[in-house]
Amino acid sequence: MTTTLTLYTPAGVLAQAQPLRRAAKRLKALGFEVQVDADALAKHQRFAGDDETRLAALHRVAAEAPSIAMATRGGYGLTRLLDRIDWPLLARSVEQGTRWVGQSDLTSLQLGLLAHAKQQGPQTWAGPLACDDFGRTEEEGGVDDVTQDCFTEAMDGLLEAVGFRTEAGFDGLAVKGQLWGGNLSVLNSLLGTPHLPRIKGGILFLEDVNEHPYRVERNLLQLQQAGILDAQKAVVLGEFSAWRKSPLDRGYTLKSAIEAVRARTKTPILSGLPFGHVRTKVCLPVGAKVELLVQGRDAFIGWQGDPQHHHHHSHAHEGHDHAH
Amino acid sequence: MTTTLTLYTPAGVLAQAQPLRRAAKRLKALGFEVQVDADALAKHQRFAGDDETRLAALHRVAAEAPSIAMATRGGYGLTRLLDRIDWPLLARSVEQGTRWVGQSDLTSLQLGLLAHAKQQGPQTWAGPLACDDFGRTEEEGGVDDVTQDCFTEAMDGLLEAVGFRTEAGFDGLAVKGQLWGGNLSVLNSLLGTPHLPRIKGGILFLEDVNEHPYRVERNLLQLQQAGILDAQKAVVLGEFSAWRKSPLDRGYTLKSAIEAVRARTKTPILSGLPFGHVRTKVCLPVGAKVELLVQGRDAFIGWQGDPQHHHHHSHAHEGHDHAH
Repeated sequence: MTTTLTLYTPAGVLAQAQPLRRAAKRLKALGFEVQVDADALAKHQRFAGDDETRLAALHRVAAEAPSIAMATRGGYGLTRLLDRIDWPLLARSVEQGTRWVGQSDLTSLQLGLLAHAKQQGPQTWAGPLACDDFGRTEEEGGVDDVTQDCFTEAMDGLLEAVGFRTEAGFDGLAVKGQLWGGNLSVLNSLLGTPHLPRIKGGILFLEDVNEHPYRVERNLLQLQQAGILDAQKAVVLGEFSAWRKSPLDRGYTLKSAIEAVRARTKTPILSGLPFGHVRTKVCLPVGAKVELLVQGRDAFIGWQGDPQHHHHHSHAHEGHDHAH
Repeated sequence: MTTTLTLYTPAGVLAQAQPLRRAAKRLKALGFEVQVDADALAKHQRFAGDDETRLAALHRVAAEAPSIAMATRGGYGLTRLLDRIDWPLLARSVEQGTRWVGQSDLTSLQLGLLAHAKQQGPQTWAGPLACDDFGRTEEEGGVDDVTQDCFTEAMDGLLEAVGFRTEAGFDGLAVKGQLWGGNLSVLNSLLGTPHLPRIKGGILFLEDVNEHPYRVERNLLQLQQAGILDAQKAVVLGEFSAWRKSPLDRGYTLKSAIEAVRARTKTPILSGLPFGHVRTKVCLPVGAKVELLVQGRDAFIGWQGDPQHHHHHSHAHEGHDHAH
C-alpha cells in the first residue's frame, strides 16, 4: 500500500528551500511517497503566502486527502484563518484516513477540528514538523532517532502507547479520557473563541517555547480560572524550552510556576512528557481516548490499537465506504 | 482638604528602594500626603512578598481607603490573587472616594472590579505607576511633564478629557460608551475567566510592551473571534513599545498587524493614544461613560466632570454618607 505524504506550509514563511528539500528527501528514504504542496514555499511578509494562499493550500490538501498531511513548520499564521477554515472538509479528510501531523501553531488547527466536530472530534497527531525535525543538516544534528521511530510507527498505525519518566508522587495514577492539548500559548489564544473544544474529563498535554515561566504560569492560571484545569482528569506537561532567566526572578523558576498552579487545582499535573520544541518528541493522538498510567515514576499514555483505524471501523456500519 | 496617597506593591518585586523613595518624595512635593504600605518593599522570588502578603496589602489599602491608591510598579503577580480578592471591599473603597491608579499588571485589578460589580462598575484610573513614572533619576529622564500634569489633574478631579493626534480616516467619528481596557496581554489573560467584564458598546483602549506585532495581532484577533471587538463602539490603541524586529518579518510591521485586524471588524480602530509603557501617558477613567470625538486627525476622549465625583452623586439619594 502506498503511503502518500503531503508537505504544506499553513503559517510562517519558509525563508529557505533547503530544509524543505532535506526533509522531503529523508521522508522519501523512510518509504513515504512525498508530495510538496505548490505553495509550500510561497512568501508574503512573515507568512507562507497571503491568507488566501494559505487557506487555499490547507483546503487543497484536505480535498486531496493524502495518507499524511504534514506541516513544514509552525510560526504564526493559522489564527488569521480560523474563522474561514472549512472544518467539515478537513474532518472528511480525517474520515478518509488522512493523518494530520504537526505541532506549535498547528495546535489551533488540531483543536479547532475538535471544537467544530459534531461528535467526538476528528483525531490528528501532535508530532514533528517536517523542516524542524527532518530538515536539519547532519552538522545541525540531523534527525532524532526517537522522533523518527515514533513518527513512522504512528503513521503506520502501529504506535499504541508512549512512555516517559515523571516525578515522584503519582504512583498508581490511572485515568482515562480524551487526549487534547498542544502549545500552551496557542491553546490559550483560543480561549473565548469558538475554536476551543470544551473537553471535560480529558487528559491535557501542554508545551511551550520562548516563554518565561511567569508567562507559562499566567497561561496555566488562566486555564484554571476558566475552569478548564479542574475539569480534566490529568494535565501532562511537556518541555518548556528556550526561555531566558531574568535578574528579577530571585529564585523563581519553572518549578515555582508549576507549584503555584498545582496549589490551585486537584487535577494531577505531571511533567516529563517528551514533547515540545525539542529534538526528541513523541507522537500523540489528539482527540483520541487514552489511558494514563503511572507506576512509580514511569508514566504511560496508551490507546487501543490505531485510533484512526478504530475510527473507521466505528463508522463502517453507517455505510461509509472506506478502503482499509 | 488633605489628599492621602498610598503607595503599595501588588505584583512584581521592587528590587531596590531608591526609586520608591524618589517617587514618594516627588509625590509629596506635588502636595500629596504620601504613605508607603508596610509591605511595599517585601520580597519573595519575583514577587513583592508571597501571595498572602500581597493580598493582605491590597485589602489593607482598600480598607484604609486613601484618596489615592497608587501601585509602585506592575510586573506579574495579580493573576495569582484574582480568585481571592475581596472585590466588594475594593468597590467600597471606590465608593468612599479612593482613586486606584496604575497600569500594566494592574489592568487585571481594574477590569476585575468592573467584572465583579453588581451595577456599572467601580471606576479606576489607568495611569502612571509610582516607580516607573515618578521614580527615575534626573539622569534617567526624571518625570515627564505631561504625565505629571495629567495625573495631578485627574487626581484633583479636574481632568475632563484627553486629546491626541490619530491617523486620517476617522474624521467625524462621534461615539459614546463605557471606557475600558489597559494592557492587551493582561486583558487577554482574563478571557474565559470570571474576571473579564462583559462590556458591550464600549470604547476599548489597549497598549502593550515587549510584544512582537504578531503577538499583538494574535491577541487582537482573539478578541475579534471572541466577539469582543465587534461589540465595541471603538478601539483606541496606545503605544506598543519595546518589541524587536525579526529577520523573518520581511516587511511585516505593527501596521500590518493593525490592518489585519481592521479587515476583520467594522469597529473603528484608531491609534495614537498617548498611553502605555512609555514616558508620556495620560490618565483615563476606566469604567466611566465617555465620548470619543474625532475632528480631522484630532481625537478627544471626554467625560462629564469628575467621573468619581459624579458616581458619588448618583448614589447620594440612596442614603450613602459621602463627604464631598
